[in-house]
Amino acid sequence: MSGRDFLAMEEWSPEMVDGLLALAARVKRGELLGGLERKVLAMVFMDPSLRTRSSMETAMFLHGGHALCLEPGKGSWALETELDVVMDGTTVEHIIEMARVLARYADALAVRSFPKGTDWAVEREDRTIRNFAKYSDKPVINLESSRRHPCQGLADALTLREHLGETTGKRFVLQWAWHPKALPTAVPASAAIAAAHLGMEVVIARPAGYDLDPDDYTAIETLATSRGGSLTITDEVDGAIDGAHAVYPKSWGALSCFGRPDDERAFREGKRDWRLTAARMRTTAGGKGIAMHCLPVRRNVEIDGEVLDGPQSAVIDQAENRLHVQRALLLEVAGRTS
Amino acid sequence: MSGRDFLAMEEWSPEMVDGLLALAARVKRGELLGGLERKVLAMVFMDPSLRTRSSMETAMFLHGGHALCLEPGKGSWALETELDVVMDGTTVEHIIEMARVLARYADALAVRSFPKGTDWAVEREDRTIRNFAKYSDKPVINLESSRRHPCQGLADALTLREHLGETTGKRFVLQWAWHPKALPTAVPASAAIAAAHLGMEVVIARPAGYDLDPDDYTAIETLATSRGGSLTITDEVDGAIDGAHAVYPKSWGALSCFGRPDDERAFREGKRDWRLTAARMRTTAGGKGIAMHCLPVRRNVEIDGEVLDGPQSAVIDQAENRLHVQRALLLEVAGRTS
Amino acid sequence: MSGRDFLAMEEWSPEMVDGLLALAARVKRGELLGGLERKVLAMVFMDPSLRTRSSMETAMFLHGGHALCLEPGKGSWALETELDVVMDGTTVEHIIEMARVLARYADALAVRSFPKGTDWAVEREDRTIRNFAKYSDKPVINLESSRRHPCQGLADALTLREHLGETTGKRFVLQWAWHPKALPTAVPASAAIAAAHLGMEVVIARPAGYDLDPDDYTAIETLATSRGGSLTITDEVDGAIDGAHAVYPKSWGALSCFGRPDDERAFREGKRDWRLTAARMRTTAGGKGIAMHCLPVRRNVEIDGEVLDGPQSAVIDQAENRLHVQRALLLEVAGRTS
Repeated sequence: MSGRDFLAMEEWSPEMVDGLLALAARVKRGELLGGLERKVLAMVFMDPSLRTRSSMETAMFLHGGHALCLEPGKGSWALETELDVVMDGTTVEHIIEMARVLARYADALAVRSFPKGTDWAVEREDRTIRNFAKYSDKPVINLESSRRHPCQGLADALTLREHLGETTGKRFVLQWAWHPKALPTAVPASAAIAAAHLGMEVVIARPAGYDLDPDDYTAIETLATSRGGSLTITDEVDGAIDGAHAVYPKSWGALSCFGRPDDERAFREGKRDWRLTAARMRTTAGGKGIAMHCLPVRRNVEIDGEVLDGPQSAVIDQAENRLHVQRALLLEVAGRTS
Repeated sequence: MSGRDFLAMEEWSPEMVDGLLALAARVKRGELLGGLERKVLAMVFMDPSLRTRSSMETAMFLHGGHALCLEPGKGSWALETELDVVMDGTTVEHIIEMARVLARYADALAVRSFPKGTDWAVEREDRTIRNFAKYSDKPVINLESSRRHPCQGLADALTLREHLGETTGKRFVLQWAWHPKALPTAVPASAAIAAAHLGMEVVIARPAGYDLDPDDYTAIETLATSRGGSLTITDEVDGAIDGAHAVYPKSWGALSCFGRPDDERAFREGKRDWRLTAARMRTTAGGKGIAMHCLPVRRNVEIDGEVLDGPQSAVIDQAENRLHVQRALLLEVAGRTS
Repeated sequence: MSGRDFLAMEEWSPEMVDGLLALAARVKRGELLGGLERKVLAMVFMDPSLRTRSSMETAMFLHGGHALCLEPGKGSWALETELDVVMDGTTVEHIIEMARVLARYADALAVRSFPKGTDWAVEREDRTIRNFAKYSDKPVINLESSRRHPCQGLADALTLREHLGETTGKRFVLQWAWHPKALPTAVPASAAIAAAHLGMEVVIARPAGYDLDPDDYTAIETLATSRGGSLTITDEVDGAIDGAHAVYPKSWGALSCFGRPDDERAFREGKRDWRLTAARMRTTAGGKGIAMHCLPVRRNVEIDGEVLDGPQSAVIDQAENRLHVQRALLLEVAGRTS
């Protein structure tokens, strides 16, 4: 594994993460041109993307580089991600060769691979992204794996700093939201880790049965505590939002029903009021707390359109900041002086 | 809406359109390098493309910029285009967020969105492209919407000028053609508007029941008249082509059958002789009128192969001119000095 | 047809191929920057790709150019490849227009088109790539057609030279391998032609009934003989590998069963031991012969994982060399000084 892989925010030292955020602020102000001339990023998308692809491709271009966009199973070959396997089935390309070959063409790899929704005991090991990192001798960037979406986390952190100024001790509420599908936990875990990095009072408001993986709670609490913040878990959504500086509604599926979507749907029933409404936003700190989301967001399901279109929404800033934090990250791991 | 959106040719002043065509001729001669350095165009394709994608991507590259190519529902998320909706169905990303986010990454947006073929009363409002323009604070370029394909129109106009020299009063025949499918009216309407802009004698030859939208006729006639030309509608295909300087065969579906493809197919029966043949081309002005088409064209169905491969064909020039008019358009709406 | 089309290695003079290989070695050492500024390559993929797309796109970028990636039937229109046809079926774009239009946008075209698996008598004429070459007035590069994969052949030749030094008279074994599907013969034929170009003792080890097309044998033998080598065909796999300097296991379908996959599957039965094992690799020259493959490879089916991951494997070098030979080829056919 390269020393410069970016697979999870908590695997980089807080100093390095702060360095990235500072660099992101500088590139956003236009203080740094170039740095990625003749550099190539190979992006591997096993799952769809709008912001991630657009912002990575733009980031490489703005600094003189180029991003390749590969989609295994579509324009590219169906990928085998298990290591010990006799490949006489339907997969055509093995992850070992893919990682090694792309590392010959590119200066960094970036991989998106959502959980397949079969067995959480397996998925929680995050093998696909870890194996890319193991077999690539160039840095690997996580564009959302089964467990983490650290580029989103960086963008969340930059947005929180821009909107709140000093963040230590301010309240960040990760609010579970109802959604027609059982979604992964990578984004909520990464958002809470980002807030923990900022030393915030992290509150996770979710219905009973909707806990994140225990290791995620440990990672969030350990980081938050070390940075002057804390972690609280509650099932009182209104109480959590009352006085919050930032509310981050996000849906995820119950891990106890992982791989059984019908059970999960039944378990989810009756929880459609876990939605970020304008009324709830008025109870935030000074009535001016910000509403956050990684996007894409289900309008009027996770967040009311009135909130998304209103002055407290920070969701477009978050999306824009994906670009700037990734420019910083790419300069750091693949740049000429890196 | 940005002042620089390019959604329909007739929405720009004739002077601005003439300026674009003059600039296109200059870039085609190689007189202008650069101008789009560090500029990004975000292209959103809801429908397939060969020329449009290739020529836009090449246009950005030739002047130092970069084009992103997004395909909602394929590599990118399924897009919701209705404004007031509770998104608990199958669409994942809302057009408002998509437009706002892309406007943060890119210097201009470009959108292709064909009609969905359900209800003309709705489709004729051209909501998808209009909503992109409404919610993007960067210029939006129409790459073919339900109603218009103005980049094709610009290319058609440049090609007519190159082949015919002075165009005022010369005869342009938009000839309906049989086709195995009911196609949209965006291209024929835009071609006729382009010829109207050039002050041509515009003749639309179509079987009874195959009229364009009444507003299209008004737009064509108003523009043609103001520029020294005229509009005539006829069901006599041979009489129309006789003496024509340019013939533009193109198929479109009967609007009275919009959304009912089986009815349309029955209505279309017996009209396979609405085809541009070599015999018909010999009756054009001096036997030297040009044959035009936006491509892709059904060989030996809309136009005979003999015509496509013969000396009167201008179809490849039209396709090439897509590149040059779009270079001019991009320099105008997103260029460094724009 | 352009004088600079690259459709099959044996259609270029040996001196020109040696020139390409020498240029490839120079660009690999970093001795040549630029040369493709403002140049565009239009790539048409009718079939999937990882290395080909990534390496071509990277090659263009590294020298200042840009590659378009089109996929007919997916983002682009369904392509008609038959010349004389009334297009009233499902295909939308004709190959003549596609070739002519792309030749207006781009400085070179590159096409991947696998055999469709219906009739070898037709497929062996390689019409799709030949028609692109016929109708494009810009150079056309073969990215794997029904008959040839000459860019892979160039990469194979460069890799053999790098690993073996002087190649004349050294033994190159093309070893048929079992595979769950009947694959095309383009890669094995092109690999043998590459070894023939290097004057090697070419041995093709395949089970009875798995001969390449007779014209391929003629091409290999003629070239090998003229360059100081030879061609031998055998069904003794172990005897062939014993003492070999390079072993290239590769699967292909029996041409006698072409278009009848069920018959081919039955014919293939009982041949799973046609696999490159570590034991077999130990019998190569000095126990140090190299194992080659074009990738993607079926792990533990065509080649054992132990061989792929071991010190005798050259497969990742081959993949890397795709990049460098293509940089040379693109500079040659589309470069500023070409």
